[in-house]
Amino acid sequence: MAAVVAATRWWRLLLVLSAGGMGASGAPQPPNILLLLMDDMGWGDLGVYGEPSRETPNLDRMAAEGMLFPNFYSANPLCSPSRAALLTGRLPIRNGFYTTNAHARNAYTPQEIVSGIPDSEQLLPELLKKAGYVSKIVGKWHLGHRPQFHPLKHGFDEWFGSPNCHFGPYDNKARPNIPVYRDWEMVGRWGGRLCSRRPGTWAGQEVGRNPTGSRTRSKSHCPDGAVLVPGRGGSTSGHGSTGYYEEFPINLKTGEANLTQIYLQEALDFIKRQARRHPFFLYWAVDATHAPVYASKPFLGTSQRGRYGDAVREIDDSIGKMLELLHDLHIADNTFVFFTSDNGAALISAPEQGGSNGPFLCGKQTTFEGGMREPALAWWPGHIAAGQVSHQLGSIMDLFTTSLALAGLTPPRDRAIDGLNLLPALLQGRLMDRPVFYYRGDTLMATTLGQHKAHFWTWTNSWENFRQGIDFCPGQNVSGVTTHNLEDHTKLPLIFHLGRDPGERFPLSFASAEYQEALSRITSVVQQHQEALVPGQPQLNVCNWAVMNWAPPGCEKLGKCLTPPESIPKKCLWSH
Amino acid sequence: MAAVVAATRWWRLLLVLSAGGMGASGAPQPPNILLLLMDDMGWGDLGVYGEPSRETPNLDRMAAEGMLFPNFYSANPLCSPSRAALLTGRLPIRNGFYTTNAHARNAYTPQEIVSGIPDSEQLLPELLKKAGYVSKIVGKWHLGHRPQFHPLKHGFDEWFGSPNCHFGPYDNKARPNIPVYRDWEMVGRWGGRLCSRRPGTWAGQEVGRNPTGSRTRSKSHCPDGAVLVPGRGGSTSGHGSTGYYEEFPINLKTGEANLTQIYLQEALDFIKRQARRHPFFLYWAVDATHAPVYASKPFLGTSQRGRYGDAVREIDDSIGKMLELLHDLHIADNTFVFFTSDNGAALISAPEQGGSNGPFLCGKQTTFEGGMREPALAWWPGHIAAGQVSHQLGSIMDLFTTSLALAGLTPPRDRAIDGLNLLPALLQGRLMDRPVFYYRGDTLMATTLGQHKAHFWTWTNSWENFRQGIDFCPGQNVSGVTTHNLEDHTKLPLIFHLGRDPGERFPLSFASAEYQEALSRITSVVQQHQEALVPGQPQLNVCNWAVMNWAPPGCEKLGKCLTPPESIPKKCLWSH
Repeated sequence: MAAVVAATRWWRLLLVLSAGGMGASGAPQPPNILLLLMDDMGWGDLGVYGEPSRETPNLDRMAAEGMLFPNFYSANPLCSPSRAALLTGRLPIRNGFYTTNAHARNAYTPQEIVSGIPDSEQLLPELLKKAGYVSKIVGKWHLGHRPQFHPLKHGFDEWFGSPNCHFGPYDNKARPNIPVYRDWEMVGRWGGRLCSRRPGTWAGQEVGRNPTGSRTRSKSHCPDGAVLVPGRGGSTSGHGSTGYYEEFPINLKTGEANLTQIYLQEALDFIKRQARRHPFFLYWAVDATHAPVYASKPFLGTSQRGRYGDAVREIDDSIGKMLELLHDLHIADNTFVFFTSDNGAALISAPEQGGSNGPFLCGKQTTFEGGMREPALAWWPGHIAAGQVSHQLGSIMDLFTTSLALAGLTPPRDRAIDGLNLLPALLQGRLMDRPVFYYRGDTLMATTLGQHKAHFWTWTNSWENFRQGIDFCPGQNVSGVTTHNLEDHTKLPLIFHLGRDPGERFPLSFASAEYQEALSRITSVVQQHQEALVPGQPQLNVCNWAVMNWAPPGCEKLGKCLTPPESIPKKCLWSH
Repeated sequence: MAAVVAATRWWRLLLVLSAGGMGASGAPQPPNILLLLMDDMGWGDLGVYGEPSRETPNLDRMAAEGMLFPNFYSANPLCSPSRAALLTGRLPIRNGFYTTNAHARNAYTPQEIVSGIPDSEQLLPELLKKAGYVSKIVGKWHLGHRPQFHPLKHGFDEWFGSPNCHFGPYDNKARPNIPVYRDWEMVGRWGGRLCSRRPGTWAGQEVGRNPTGSRTRSKSHCPDGAVLVPGRGGSTSGHGSTGYYEEFPINLKTGEANLTQIYLQEALDFIKRQARRHPFFLYWAVDATHAPVYASKPFLGTSQRGRYGDAVREIDDSIGKMLELLHDLHIADNTFVFFTSDNGAALISAPEQGGSNGPFLCGKQTTFEGGMREPALAWWPGHIAAGQVSHQLGSIMDLFTTSLALAGLTPPRDRAIDGLNLLPALLQGRLMDRPVFYYRGDTLMATTLGQHKAHFWTWTNSWENFRQGIDFCPGQNVSGVTTHNLEDHTKLPLIFHLGRDPGERFPLSFASAEYQEALSRITSVVQQHQEALVPGQPQLNVCNWAVMNWAPPGCEKLGKCLTPPESIPKKCLWSH
């Protein structure tokens, strides 16, 4: 991959110089970069990817005006590692966003996590500064919530959003509600009803987000179905039965929240401000499609797909408004826009609060296609020709390298970079050979090369979890493939042809020539990868209730500081 | 529905008169009608419906220039009844294309079938004659192969194609090979290798097409994997190991056959001939996507999806050529084109020879969405606005009523017609309330109304068949839904919300208000339907080996007449 980058450096520079607008100084300016990152949205959630309700007219138009990637992948089937990979251009196994506490376990950054993105990692906005970019993140950060991991310490100039997932427990005594930041300081917390009408619809998330054990599980259970735990500034004198008791409320019963509108406004304001100044990098990481899904009032109840669809419709509408603004400001042809998602749809939250992975197997948390194949659209009028489909195997990590290329920069040379520069695919329709690695925690579960995918390990989740109703593959059951034991296939991998069998239902016969040929090619690439691999220091091993968002900067001004409990570092227990 | 038809009759007439071209006499002429009916192609097989390889550029363009229906249904999950419904506008339970030999069994028209389309049925081409149409069928007829059922006796003016499915046994001694007709006489027979490299890939079809028992099953099994049974005109002196021994060969090993090219040429020639004469109705019913799937040499090996994809690509290319010809002849704006399929993808033939039903459950033979929801595109430049999506619940039977409306005709008033006139949806974007009935044989298995689908019976296939490897839902298993016993839910139907849960994985809670409300609405519609229903005389009950295609008209000229065995009428045994 390094060779590809080097070879294309010069023409890229020429291209960028000729493509770019003129800065205030009259010097050529590289294009703005707008990355639209969805949360738990699946490959099958867009009309243009075959969602039957076809309720994404703006994204479908974006595809028609740009390039669609049917074979685009996240770097991990879970949110934090995937996001860390996007911003570093490196697999989580390299940048530290994994755990060694248990073999093949997914890990992420709940409030209890002690670590986050290491200072040694160079993030995209840090690097883009060298080319004069001003960067903003709107929405979910998820690379660590303690002060040293703050996005403004890692290259972003502005932030509006949350450090962790917006879900509960909505009880700021036992655990602090998630804060919402503007730049360096919190401006409030997420709040909502403690119990939704159907708490079971995201009960599985509860299990996933509690890596230190079962201490909070009883708190998220509401036997009488209507317990509210209001509170403001640590007191219990909130709005009571109205259900809103923090600055950024979600009504878990109705699904109403206006956060997407706030995130939209943040984006529009930033774009307007930056339009005639420095080139900008806007990372719009909204989370309305992550359970508990939400939408603002005008969108609630408008989708054929229920509440999840309402959230998708509001995001689609927002993206339409952003693209329209780029046109209105006459900077559309100088703004590279890319849309994708952090991992597959969370089928555990389906049907009310989970999306669709189309024809693919399983979803979030798994290394089947449904867990890691993502919708992906590139848009850059005047540069990317309209109506194209690229079968390039793409990765979320490519957004790192491609963004640098757009800025006329090269990736750091002192470390392994997994992201590919996609400009040859985007601008010249070229296809570049590259593998896709499917990691789960510290384990390389599978690898795709060309049309063939080899599974070295298969696992959905444990029998124990499965018996509790946590199902990452509802309605799907491929014998010997969707296993509830962690099955070792390293000696004789399961291989699928993803063109003939995108649903991973029919493993190739071990005796076939096709199997032998594919295995030989994949084995060679995997050996090369593993021999060169230097795993980063694992960041997701240690948890501690004392590090939670008890008293984020700015809490004093709001009277929302809480007292942390005693510090007891513990090994995080990851169940999936 | 009758009310809708009556209400729109006058404006339709005006519309058709203004929309039509001018005939030779200078009088206004109704539009040509081109129905493109696929065989076993699934909802998910087109790029525009989300097939990941996106190899249908011509159909995708047809969608972009016309109207796409995501909620369009066949009338049955099997070929013959679905086709009979299309041409009569009536459910198979009315037109006789069902069996009463066993409860909820699918039946069709193999060679052994004694009956076919009754004379009492009025077929679309018969009716279109009244408006001066000249009609041709290219491809598979499937409404009975005995002389009285011949398409030219039921309104078609021309025919090139076969009366039955093109699959085996390719042994013209034990059973005659399927004839190919030009108009009144056969011009040859289909031929091919007796055994494919992987006979198992369509073994299930073998079971399905042998309703009189197991007499031929041993003949379709080739233990040594290479038995050829050549024969020409009843002799055994064929081409031997070259594998071709009839006029219309399929090489089952390579999948090569040039039938789609022949069918394309037949269509192009007919369109050219008719372009400046009478309005035409062309029914293009190709079968390359029915196992054993085939493609001509230029397309073989070109798809990412394997042989099935090669067949799809050739059909897509052919349709592109047809639409191009309509433009070249300047009759595009006077030709209504509709594309759909007869039933869902035959997952039993996957992955090599079966298609995709996208996110839907199961496939052909079942009354889950995968068995009956179909791709559907309407195209009529200058009349149907480009780039539209209609959520109208549509049915293959609507093509009957809509075609009549285009011709300025009304459906027969002396019988129940199930097809709806879709012109208000096509031209004005209107949505009309209507149920979708899912029959399997004589049994109403399910009904959809709005977004809700109620299953009264569930069944995929028997445990006995399932244990033999016949799987209509490979990789899918929804507990209590994809049952291998015929489960009676008539007292307490399973209800799904198809918007939130298109994959039919999460039945609504029986206790929910939504369930109660949906059940009430659906029950009322079903009661109305069943009270008014007068089932037709079942045509698919009696089989007889003596009625097979031993000596079709024209066989003498070719020296291809065979001697039928003794006539022994039997009850057909349908296993699914």
